[in-house]
Order: sequence, then C-alpha cells, then structure tokens
Amino acid sequence: MILVSVMYPAGPRFDMDYYLGHHMPLVRERWSPMGLHEAKVVRGVGTPDGKPAPFQVMVLLTWDSADAFAKAAAQHGPEIFGDIPKFTDAEAAVQINELPEASA
Amino acid sequence: MILVSVMYPAGPRFDMDYYLGHHMPLVRERWSPMGLHEAKVVRGVGTPDGKPAPFQVMVLLTWDSADAFAKAAAQHGPEIFGDIPKFTDAEAAVQINELPEASA
Repeated sequence: MILVSVMYPAGPRFDMDYYLGHHMPLVRERWSPMGLHEAKVVRGVGTPDGKPAPFQVMVLLTWDSADAFAKAAAQHGPEIFGDIPKFTDAEAAVQINELPEASA
Repeated sequence: MILVSVMYPAGPRFDMDYYLGHHMPLVRERWSPMGLHEAKVVRGVGTPDGKPAPFQVMVLLTWDSADAFAKAAAQHGPEIFGDIPKFTDAEAAVQINELPEASA
C-alpha cells in the first residue's frame, strides 16, 4: 500500500462545493476500480498556535501500489487533472509516500 | 473527529529508527488514552514526475476532537515535543484539519 498526498496551499480560490460535489466523486468513480482504496479529504483550519493553516485542503489517497496509481493516473489523468482548474488556481504539492509501519 | 498533520520537510537529518522505535511508541502510549485514534506514519519517496518529495516524513493523527488534542498536547507536550530534537533538526509544519466528508 502507498499513500499519495495532494496538498493545496492556502491563498488561491478553492471552490469546496464543486470539489466535494463533483471532483471527488469523479476521482472515486474512475479510480476505485483501479486500486484506490480510500480518498480522505481534510480541510485546514489553523495551526496549534492559532496561525492560518499552510494548506487549505489536502486529500490522502491510499492505493494498492505505486504501479496501480501510475496506471490510474495515465488512464484517467487528463479527465481528472483537467477538472482541477474548475475549482482552484492553487498548485498542489503532490507526493508519493510509503507506509513504513503496519497500521497502528 | 479531526486530523492533525505533522509534516517534516526534506533536507535536515531524520533518524527513522529512533522515530519509529521510540518516538511514535511514546506518542501512542501517552495520547491513545486521551483521544488519539490513529497515528499513521508515511515516508515521502518522490513526486509523480520523479522529483524529490517535499516532505520526508508525515504523521497523520486522528483525534476525537480539537479539544482532546489541545488537552493531550498540554498534558504531555513537554515530554513528546522535547523528544523531537533527538531524531530530527527539521521544523515540522503542523496543522489542524477538519474532515468535511463522512469517511468514503
């Protein structure tokens, strides 16, 4: 299992209604049959010391494998990534992560 | 439920053996009885286009509530945060996140 983190920095516009109502359902519909296990959306509300959150929205995508993610991105990337400008001008920081522990 | 994300940027030293073998067990021992549900550690391996991952390690802490996290941080913060210099010189980006969806 791997986890792909997509992190949208604070600042630029972000249409949460479109994101939750259209974009994420599209992501789950296209990618769940291709090895996407879970897509957890979180919204930044602040730091522990009361400052603004650096990232306004993050999504944590758990996949069977890096290979499954690569194939899914290749097959549906144009549709899914092409949808991003409809809800934000932010440039997401995306990274692939290993899970070094058994889940705990 | 809330999710606290702790993200260690790439660059500075990070002793993964100490982190997994000592620090995370300490976190779970102190905070699980105080409302910590899950602590998922991930290690950045790169970006989809083959660049280095911006964050070398992230931990995703799921809590009952922001209040539970605040109380746990107040009660055990000196011990837990005081342990951080033993495994890294990186300054973590920490933020509190809401979960705008039911889990999907």
